[in-house]
Amino acid sequence: MAKDFSTREENYSEWYNELVYRADLAENSAVRGCMVIKPYGYAIWETMHDVLDKMFKNTGHVNAYFPLFIPKSFFSREAEHVEGFAKECAVVTHYRLKKNEQGDGLIVDPDAKLEEELIVRPTSETIIWDTYKNWIQSYRDLPILCNQWANVVRWEMRTRLFLRTAEFLWQEGHTAHATREEAEAEAQKMIHVYADFAENYMAIPVVLGVKSPNERFAGALDTYCIEAMMQDGKALQAGTSHFLGQNFAKAFNVQFLNKDNKLEYVWATSWGVSTRLMGALIMTHSDDNGLVLPPKLAPIQVAIVPIYKQLEQLAEINAVVEKIQKGLEAQGITVKYDNRDTQKPGWKFHEYEFKGVPVRLAIGARDLENGTIEMARRDTLEKMVIKLDEVQTAVPKMLEEIQINLYNRAKEMRISKTRPVDSWEEFKVEIEKGGFLLAHWDGTPETEQKIKDETKATIRMVPIDGVKEVGKCVYSGKPSQQRVYFARAY
Amino acid sequence: MAKDFSTREENYSEWYNELVYRADLAENSAVRGCMVIKPYGYAIWETMHDVLDKMFKNTGHVNAYFPLFIPKSFFSREAEHVEGFAKECAVVTHYRLKKNEQGDGLIVDPDAKLEEELIVRPTSETIIWDTYKNWIQSYRDLPILCNQWANVVRWEMRTRLFLRTAEFLWQEGHTAHATREEAEAEAQKMIHVYADFAENYMAIPVVLGVKSPNERFAGALDTYCIEAMMQDGKALQAGTSHFLGQNFAKAFNVQFLNKDNKLEYVWATSWGVSTRLMGALIMTHSDDNGLVLPPKLAPIQVAIVPIYKQLEQLAEINAVVEKIQKGLEAQGITVKYDNRDTQKPGWKFHEYEFKGVPVRLAIGARDLENGTIEMARRDTLEKMVIKLDEVQTAVPKMLEEIQINLYNRAKEMRISKTRPVDSWEEFKVEIEKGGFLLAHWDGTPETEQKIKDETKATIRMVPIDGVKEVGKCVYSGKPSQQRVYFARAY
Repeated sequence: MAKDFSTREENYSEWYNELVYRADLAENSAVRGCMVIKPYGYAIWETMHDVLDKMFKNTGHVNAYFPLFIPKSFFSREAEHVEGFAKECAVVTHYRLKKNEQGDGLIVDPDAKLEEELIVRPTSETIIWDTYKNWIQSYRDLPILCNQWANVVRWEMRTRLFLRTAEFLWQEGHTAHATREEAEAEAQKMIHVYADFAENYMAIPVVLGVKSPNERFAGALDTYCIEAMMQDGKALQAGTSHFLGQNFAKAFNVQFLNKDNKLEYVWATSWGVSTRLMGALIMTHSDDNGLVLPPKLAPIQVAIVPIYKQLEQLAEINAVVEKIQKGLEAQGITVKYDNRDTQKPGWKFHEYEFKGVPVRLAIGARDLENGTIEMARRDTLEKMVIKLDEVQTAVPKMLEEIQINLYNRAKEMRISKTRPVDSWEEFKVEIEKGGFLLAHWDGTPETEQKIKDETKATIRMVPIDGVKEVGKCVYSGKPSQQRVYFARAY
Repeated sequence: MAKDFSTREENYSEWYNELVYRADLAENSAVRGCMVIKPYGYAIWETMHDVLDKMFKNTGHVNAYFPLFIPKSFFSREAEHVEGFAKECAVVTHYRLKKNEQGDGLIVDPDAKLEEELIVRPTSETIIWDTYKNWIQSYRDLPILCNQWANVVRWEMRTRLFLRTAEFLWQEGHTAHATREEAEAEAQKMIHVYADFAENYMAIPVVLGVKSPNERFAGALDTYCIEAMMQDGKALQAGTSHFLGQNFAKAFNVQFLNKDNKLEYVWATSWGVSTRLMGALIMTHSDDNGLVLPPKLAPIQVAIVPIYKQLEQLAEINAVVEKIQKGLEAQGITVKYDNRDTQKPGWKFHEYEFKGVPVRLAIGARDLENGTIEMARRDTLEKMVIKLDEVQTAVPKMLEEIQINLYNRAKEMRISKTRPVDSWEEFKVEIEKGGFLLAHWDGTPETEQKIKDETKATIRMVPIDGVKEVGKCVYSGKPSQQRVYFARAY
């Protein structure tokens, strides 16, 4: 355990903050609520970007770029959207500074006031649908399947690195369709893409469902989501995909001539994941020794540390490691050989452990004699001695094993924290222990709100194609057709 | 030539605007000065991003992300920088909107005024050096070699798609070094990376040099640049790399303990290219038939169009094309087979020609009989009939040839527009014809300013390692050691 490093048990929140900072993932900046994503953290995000981007392209999407600013009046166009997004946001009111004649520095030039204020985008439905208006005339122009990678700003009052920041990075897909069915299918397809990414790359098991009306995206008819369970028993929404119906098409008057030559409003979806996923990744797998990364997203998959006394020994080790490194790299594995002599092996071991490097190899003079090397896995901290001529098969096998083990471990954790609850008394007791509570709900926003007010728990999602089971609402006792997922959430 | 499409001769500026719009590269948005980069245009930018990113990584750089907003006071810290960048910019003054009680819509909440205004970054030296302060204590922490891909905003009054927009996309490298020599070498290394990219990927020949003091980046000791010549005789700055000395380190108090345990200020560079390169790409190669793209950056490298009467014929053609496409794709070539029956072959030919697809293949019933296919190259518009069994070698060869031809053609154009000028009378006549004028200059900002005032020409750059040649300033008659490049510029 790192010196002065909080354990999860002692203070989960401190543990997270220190981990993000000390593992060189991100830090707070001079601008309230805005983070600096440091190179090591950004390298993870880049891989996430690259994998997701490929998945989007494989499902027929293309990238584009829309303006950072949105005219204020655009937000008022869609009645629900304005409630959800036009409140806490960064407002640009002027376009020039000038020297302060009465003192030092710069002041805002009062003559450079904008006629209409501009909002730094909190999400881009409005500006994009204003653009799509010009792109869509006929059914032949549909579907439009665009995605954009961008920064967005929401003026959050309480911020935490990755989990909730004023500025964050994300992708937002915005699609336009000729029929309701096609748009609904798109929204569902994309939440499955996110689930695939979460499970198979991030090694995070997720539950997939649809949001209750209270938790829906502002302006959506349906919000599909994936939810993950963190080690402290809080849920984290890891991705959402919205079926927007014709709301934005109506708000921005986007109509098309259908095959029967009649004008119809266009059907829409939007979907996004953000740097918040970094928070999910960190909290799902890491431990009291620092970061733990799934091999598929680790910027360094294998770290190699030489152990030597004389420089002569190092030269011999270098020669052996060079071959190992080349062989692993030829297999597409990212390797860092750290033979700096400014740091001791123990320091290096700690460094790569803390930064979550999945596999560490260590090799010394005795290993050279024996034709062996030490391999340590980050997930379980186990060490084993393997033969040098097995390295090229043992390392990739170990990386695969770690990827699977992290997923299984997280899934076991999620399952152990998920249980049915059948009475309100039980609900109130169990929610204090964290995790997902599977409970019956009468389907009304009023009940959902009361449960939230009394316990801070929200409905994380209603399973689609979930087991139908007649029961009684855990709060109101009214009839219910299926259990839903309740939890306290990030 | 496309109907209603301006030629370069008729109206170069109109030609450019229409080309950008009609080739689906970009368009103006509802927000003054901010563009929408459309999927086809963005696909080109993505490839530029990917190639450059690899080049940066191969030269030891890593990516990071810094905040969109910069506190107003940061700009006043570096005396020259404030002059250059703090004037026309987007100023965030408030962080909340609220419902208008007196009418419709939303108003800025007067209670949500920021204590200190935030500027949307026009460039990030200030916020980054404020961050580096915490990253650098000792020489062991150096160098820092960071790059960021980001959007920036400069409130330009007259905007043109890609060339000058209020918001644009770019990358900005920001490096920190222990010695002056190392920082200077870095700044020079990166301008060479840009030149390599411009010449070998964009097929744009560039001249490389250093800016005169008047044209230097605000806060730099030296600005290295690459300059390209457009078909209308105007120069375009395609990339800059700045040696910043210790200016930002002093402004943000960034010191390090050197090997002798003494405190020193850190040496800095910054360097960037932007979506402006898209403008250079378009204007360098395109013609009166539309866009012309170098194969290495073309989103579609080969378009294949079937020519058929009955659907039976199409089925036969489809089978042949499938093999061709697979073979080309296996070679890493991007192929689009357009067998839509909603459009005629002529329409498709025009479409891919206008969008600058380097190679077009067309195949009909008679070709099937003869075992041939028609290949057309976009750069020269030549058509040729080749044998079907030669396609897999002929197409990649043609792509290479087009890449080289575009570069050579642009270089010839540049050379034809570059000439020495030895008298002020000649200068005034020649500058009206456009192109680069190689003239002697006395080295003073005053003379440079006067030449600019009288002719709108600026010194584009002073060649580094250029031919030394004693002469007399074309304007003042004072002594000069070398010719410099003058031009009117974008």
